[in-house]
Formats: sequence, structure tokens, C-alpha cells
Amino acid sequence: MDGEEVAVAGWAHEIRDLGGITFILLRDREGTIQAVFKEDENEELFEKAQEVGREDVIMIEGTVKESDQAPGDRELMPTSLEIIGDAEQPLPMEVSKDIDSDRATRLDNRFMDLRRPEIHAIFSLRSHLIESMEEYFDKNDYINIQTPNIAKMGAEGGAELFPVVYYGEEAFLSQSPQLYKQMLMAAGFDKVYETGTAFRAENSNTSRHVSEISMFDVELAFIEDQDDVMDVLENSLRYTLEETAKKSADDLEELGVELTVPEEDFPRISFEEARRILKEEYDYEPAEEDDLDTKGEKLLGEHFEEQGHPAFFVIGYPGEKFYYMEAREGDKYGSRRFDLIYKGLELASGGQREHDMDKLMAAIEEEGIDPEDISFYLESFKFGMPPHGGYGLGLDRLVRQVAELDNVKEGILFPRDPDRLTP
Amino acid sequence: MDGEEVAVAGWAHEIRDLGGITFILLRDREGTIQAVFKEDENEELFEKAQEVGREDVIMIEGTVKESDQAPGDRELMPTSLEIIGDAEQPLPMEVSKDIDSDRATRLDNRFMDLRRPEIHAIFSLRSHLIESMEEYFDKNDYINIQTPNIAKMGAEGGAELFPVVYYGEEAFLSQSPQLYKQMLMAAGFDKVYETGTAFRAENSNTSRHVSEISMFDVELAFIEDQDDVMDVLENSLRYTLEETAKKSADDLEELGVELTVPEEDFPRISFEEARRILKEEYDYEPAEEDDLDTKGEKLLGEHFEEQGHPAFFVIGYPGEKFYYMEAREGDKYGSRRFDLIYKGLELASGGQREHDMDKLMAAIEEEGIDPEDISFYLESFKFGMPPHGGYGLGLDRLVRQVAELDNVKEGILFPRDPDRLTP
Repeated sequence: MDGEEVAVAGWAHEIRDLGGITFILLRDREGTIQAVFKEDENEELFEKAQEVGREDVIMIEGTVKESDQAPGDRELMPTSLEIIGDAEQPLPMEVSKDIDSDRATRLDNRFMDLRRPEIHAIFSLRSHLIESMEEYFDKNDYINIQTPNIAKMGAEGGAELFPVVYYGEEAFLSQSPQLYKQMLMAAGFDKVYETGTAFRAENSNTSRHVSEISMFDVELAFIEDQDDVMDVLENSLRYTLEETAKKSADDLEELGVELTVPEEDFPRISFEEARRILKEEYDYEPAEEDDLDTKGEKLLGEHFEEQGHPAFFVIGYPGEKFYYMEAREGDKYGSRRFDLIYKGLELASGGQREHDMDKLMAAIEEEGIDPEDISFYLESFKFGMPPHGGYGLGLDRLVRQVAELDNVKEGILFPRDPDRLTP
Repeated sequence: MDGEEVAVAGWAHEIRDLGGITFILLRDREGTIQAVFKEDENEELFEKAQEVGREDVIMIEGTVKESDQAPGDRELMPTSLEIIGDAEQPLPMEVSKDIDSDRATRLDNRFMDLRRPEIHAIFSLRSHLIESMEEYFDKNDYINIQTPNIAKMGAEGGAELFPVVYYGEEAFLSQSPQLYKQMLMAAGFDKVYETGTAFRAENSNTSRHVSEISMFDVELAFIEDQDDVMDVLENSLRYTLEETAKKSADDLEELGVELTVPEEDFPRISFEEARRILKEEYDYEPAEEDDLDTKGEKLLGEHFEEQGHPAFFVIGYPGEKFYYMEAREGDKYGSRRFDLIYKGLELASGGQREHDMDKLMAAIEEEGIDPEDISFYLESFKFGMPPHGGYGLGLDRLVRQVAELDNVKEGILFPRDPDRLTP
């Protein structure tokens, strides 16, 4: 690098004026480099450097020089300087200084917030997580699918749906590709995945929820039981973390995060066993009998983390949505539904689906859903439906857990919640 | 393969009863294999075979035997047969026979339609096209982004928007990630791509339009002019076609399509030149002065196809959306906006964007847009915006053109149009 002629373009991250000498720290996507403007060496260039304001877009040509004193042990001796894009002053928020603006200010000025190297790293990491995840399924001959976002009815009943006016007709934004990916099992697609969006009109502001969720959905046919589905989830998550640890080494360093890839098999415990651990080790009983709740998942996460297991499955959740298969005679779990908990947070839910039409109809009736509303889905069970299962994994949650963020919104470029529709 | 013991599961594609001998053609994702049930060899199994109906899901264990008379030169001598999933009779549409149901019937019963090998091939091809396209950008260090689907305002003004009720507030489904990907250029993201959905409430039923569109969007900063953007589009499309020709060789054969990868540079002609060719060679003048229209694109497609160029660029379209850069002094084109036409259909539109705040404001005013409505976007131009450009490519159109389909809906699993909200 020493002596190399370069042209670099980026933002004026910091400007220091030492009287007769001006340092401009130029920031681009890769990092920063310091350019040195000396009055006694090139007065014209030095004068031009005085015009540069913080966060201006500039282009500098010059020679790289090794230097012990400079950040990154090198600096740029400029031969030309051009201001490509002016930044108004004052800035709406700080980029270079370590002043923590509150989250609302940061999200309001997201284009400035995203300039901060530690924020940028989150989205480079996110990109690598998604790339690696898809790579696993591409390599294993899954078909990448796109299902509709606008539907006549939600996949999971009427609650928490965003209404859309569809050419004068009432419609809703999709909560999940559940019904569509099951229909594709009836269509002989065998193995599918989708990177899509789920819309949930939850009127709550927690660190785990947003209104637009990036989901990674998987479905596969001709399975024996839920273990086949868990195998896919376990193997693909391990692959994703391994690949991301390599591709995003710089991002993880910027974030100060050590990403450990779980080498051993993920523990698979029953729902009852999970409740027992909570009661016996933490004297904690989740309020709802059919759930582990957020605190319970966190405590279980600690329990398994101590044993070297950041990820584990809980199998056999009681009565959930109609499409999950309930226990068959001889099953050792209460149902064929599971959750994957990663670093103390529910990351994915899945299981074997009910493919027996009579049992499915009984479950739909019990849930109080009008079969007419999902007749297009029920039709696909009548003409040869193979046994199948799958899961949905929250990509925003995956980013949150890997990057160790305090809120799922931190891992979304432009999050949507009950109070936020812009930017 | 000869003599191999196998277990195969799939659908009973065809059943032929020859008196004392029954042939069942089993179909799975990979293809078909014929199983032979002989009464005089195994009566019990033969009886069971009589219970199998067309499109039942079945599992057969047995031995593979080479056979000149069998389709694919091999057949299966079964040792066991299980009916996993019954199909009601009559079937809602034919899967194995060459009866062309009309499009409405096929889309109504899409889960059956998708069982047909020639329809399945379209979606295997589509998956490979998207996989290859993303691969190009992953390899070239683009960041994979996800921008919001629900927005306060459309990217391109008020027309053709689907209204959403967002926690009691009026909002719209996104027409394009345009404003967001530009904001990310201000955020220093440099090179981004998104595989997403665009929603257009166009009340027209053509072979080119649907209401939910799969889009591939790209944006890059620090460009010289639109040529840099066209280079990316050209190189990525060539890579995508090359890779897909390899990965989807079977699908292309099933579809009877020969995919030729354009080796030579894509021609880049001006808008005026395009109009001149239409006038002089085809005596055709598009009705609108600022457009080439569908027929014009088709004729130009023929013109260039004859010269061995399935893809070409038309540069310098007159006054379009505010975010396109108009011609600068000395430019040889009327604007910096281009279209990519592939096999006679507009596949992508893009160009250099206006990054000068004053010129941008003038264009916004001229288009009659209230700057207040997009203030979140305009803010990002005030604090250091680099020159940038990009494009949006219609993935459904790409599938249509590569698979040589007569309608864009044929390449979408569950298409949405003014008359179709289910399945």
C-alpha cells in the first residue's frame, strides 16, 4: 500500500484543524483513512480543505503513506480534493461522536444513523446471514418460492390483520405464507423456502415485535415426523452461522460480538421437561399453562447456554393453530409442534402439519374458523396430500440475537410499528 | 440402477389395467417411473394396486429393472405398496392428460395445475433465475436489503396505490423501493440489491401486468453516469442466464426452450434512434411521443434479435419521474434514463438519479407532488448525497421471457389481478 496512488470517495467523518495543518478523516463503506493537508506544502489544496464540512461527500486523490501516528497506520497525502455533495450544518444527528441519540431520533434520521460504522455493520451482517441461509437451501435443491402478500383471509384467523382495499373488495396483508406453502406440498413441490414479509397489526411496543417482519419459511413433504423438520432447521442454522462467522468477521469485530457456532447437536426437550426445569431450577412458573413466555425462554436459554448450548428445541406445545398435527397414538410428546430457542429468544416455530382431512376439519371447527373462508386451502387436501411439515424463522430476530441488539428494530433498516410509518 | 432396491413416494400419474397386469406410473419431483403389478406373481399386491386411484399419494418399495418397453427404459418390480393420501374422484382438472384447461380453471385449481411437469419446470427455472441473480450481487459485495412494504406515500405519486389501514391511519402498499434505496446511498451503503414485491393497483388485464410484482432492485453510488448502471445490469443478466442454462437444463428441456446467452455487448441506442428504426424499417410510429409502447418494443426486439442481440438498451427517454436525472450539458442523450428490452419486452428501467437538491425540487414541483409528503426522502439529500443510479427489473417478466410464456401470470405461483384474490 505504501506509495500507492489512489482515489477515494466518501464522507468527511472528522475534521481537525491544527493551525497550518488540517486532518480530514474520510469514511467509506470499508472504513476510514486520514488525509493530511499542509498549508506550507500546497496552499491551494489546504484552502480547499477549509471549505470541507463534516459529512460532506468528498473525493481525494493522493498517495498512501505508512505512518505510525495515523489511525490504521497509514495516511493519505492528497494531490486533489473535490467536494461532491455538500452537507448542511448543523447535522440532524451525530455520526462520528460517541453521543448516543435516543432511538426515536436515530430512526427519524435513519439515513444519518446508518452512516455510523457500528450500525452499518449490523446490515452487512444481516445481508450475510440471509445470503448464507438461502445458500444452504439452494445447495439442497429447495425451490425458492414467492407467495402472495395480499390475501382474502389471514393464515391464522382474523386477529391482528391489516385491512387492504383491493379493487373495492376487502382483503388483508398476509400474516404468514403457511397456507400457500402447504398447498405447494399438495402440488408436489416437496421442498420449498421463501424469504418474505409477514404483516402483524399487533398494537404492542416490545423489544421483540414489529409490524413488518422478515420471515424465512420452509416446508417439506414425505416426512416421518417433526424430527425431520428440526433436522433441516438445525443443519441450516449451523451452516448459516458458520458461513456468516467467516463472511462477516469484520462486522462482528466492529460490533464487538463473538459468534460461537454450536458444534454439538441442539438439545431437544419436551414442553413438560422445559416447565420442570423452570420450576425446579428457577422456581418459575409461566402464567399461561400452554406457554413458556418470554421470561421462561430467557431462563431456559441461560440453563442451556451454561451447558454450551446456545440453541435448543422445545417439542410438544399444547393445542396451537389448526394446521399443527396433534400427538398420534404412541407419541412421546403432547403434539408435533416445536419452537427453536436461540440465546434465550424464540427464533422459529414449526412442526408436522395435519394432513388428514377429518382431523383438520375438526381442528378448524374448534378454532371457530369458517371453512368457507379457507376453502381454496382445504381443497388441496382432497386430491392426494402427502405428510409434511415446516417452520417459520424470524430473520429480524436472528439478526438481533447474532448481533446482540437490545431491540429487534435495531436490525431493521426502516422498521414499522404502531407509532412509526416513516421514514 | 438395474437390480437396485428402492422406495419411491409420489402421485399416481397414470394407471393402466391390462387384465391380470396393472401399470402404475408414479410421478415425483424428479420425473416418473412405471411400477408393474402382476396378478400371477403377487395377488395380494395386485389387489392393492386395484385400490389406487389417479393422483393418490402412494409409496412403492421394490427393485429397479431395465426394460426397453418401459418409459425411461426402466421399471419398478414392487414388493410393497402403500396409499398415503387418497385423491377424491373426479379430479377438479386433468394432470396427466394433454387436455388444456382454460387459464381461469387452472389458476383456480393451481395446486393441481402445478403438478403438471411442464408447469413445475417453470417454477424450478424461476427459482434458479433468482438464485443466480442474487449470487452475482452477493459475489460482488452488494448488500441484500429489505425495505418497507407499507408506506405513507407511493414512490411514484398517488396513482395506482392500494390503500391500507395502518392502526387507524391511511397508508399505502409500496409501488417500488425507489425512495428507500436512494436514501441508502445517502447512508453510505454504496451498493445494494433487493428482491421484493411491488404493488400496483392497475385496473387492466394484460399479458404483462399483475397487481403483485416480484421486483429485483439495484442501486449504486459514486457512478460517472448511466453507463455504469447499464454495465451492472448487463453483466448480472448475462451471469444469470449462463448459470440458469446450466442449473435448469432439465427444466428448459421440459419446456422445449433453448436459452441462448448473449455473448456480445448489448447494443445501447438512443431513444431517437429507436424511433427512427421503427419509422424507417417498420413504418411504425408509437402513439405517444415520449414512449415506444408495447408494439414498438416488440418490433425493436425483432430488429435486434435478427442481428443476434436478444437484449439491448434504449437510452434517453424523455421526462419521466422526478428522481431520474435529465440530460446535463454536453450529454448525447435527452436524459439519463434507460430501458432494457429483452426478447421484445421491457424488462428493466433505470438510470442515473438526480442528486442535486435544487434540480430535484424543481422536478418534484413540476410533477405536482407536495414536497411535504416525501420530506423524509428529501432530507437525505441535504447532508451529503453522492451521485448514484440504479434500476428495477421485473422478475416475473424475466421468467416469462426465458420460459417463453404467453402471459406473465404463468410464471407466478398464485398471481393477483383485478379479478383474482384467491387462491
